[in-house]
Amino acid sequence: MEKLQLDELDFSKHNGLIPVVALSSETGEVLMQAYANLEALKLTQSSGYAHYWSRSRGKLWKKGETSGNLQKIEKILVDCDADALVYQVLQKGPVCHTGEGSCFYRELVKDLT
Amino acid sequence: MEKLQLDELDFSKHNGLIPVVALSSETGEVLMQAYANLEALKLTQSSGYAHYWSRSRGKLWKKGETSGNLQKIEKILVDCDADALVYQVLQKGPVCHTGEGSCFYRELVKDLT
Repeated sequence: MEKLQLDELDFSKHNGLIPVVALSSETGEVLMQAYANLEALKLTQSSGYAHYWSRSRGKLWKKGETSGNLQKIEKILVDCDADALVYQVLQKGPVCHTGEGSCFYRELVKDLT
Repeated sequence: MEKLQLDELDFSKHNGLIPVVALSSETGEVLMQAYANLEALKLTQSSGYAHYWSRSRGKLWKKGETSGNLQKIEKILVDCDADALVYQVLQKGPVCHTGEGSCFYRELVKDLT
């Protein structure tokens, strides 16, 4: 698998942020989607645990820092444009604040009526 | 699975755009990441094929319109904050313009030297 470094990522498209999809390395399931900036990625690489940038709180965020539901990084994948990432993680406990095993537990439908 | 409609999605956080992860409904693999606006979602729902908003080209984009590598929608999932989506798709041909079966074919590493 081709390898890239941090300085090859494209942070220009969304105010210094890159979208990140967190995938369970055990089940392959999509766990959540969030954003990372360069600092979050450096912390993720140095600590081995997933860090993100919280847009709502305007600060760096170590996933699970409060809840204990940490994400241990197994691998980070980069897409063809180097502007999106996948964190392959070992998820401790439920990923979602609702207690669900994935944040994507709802379905979009055309019309409920 | 709980169901939501288009008018329940939160388009406010990124200039009317919502990040979308395309997943293969056959293999579960993450194929690509892109963005959709409301119009792209309406077209996705009405046509049954994945549409996105291209930030680089500044226009709606039916995936595979030129290449033929269409994405037939099986299901659309919504996350807990209603600000991120998963398209579960039947991918025709390779998803990536490089010919790879996933756009995430590279790995981020700490240091190549």
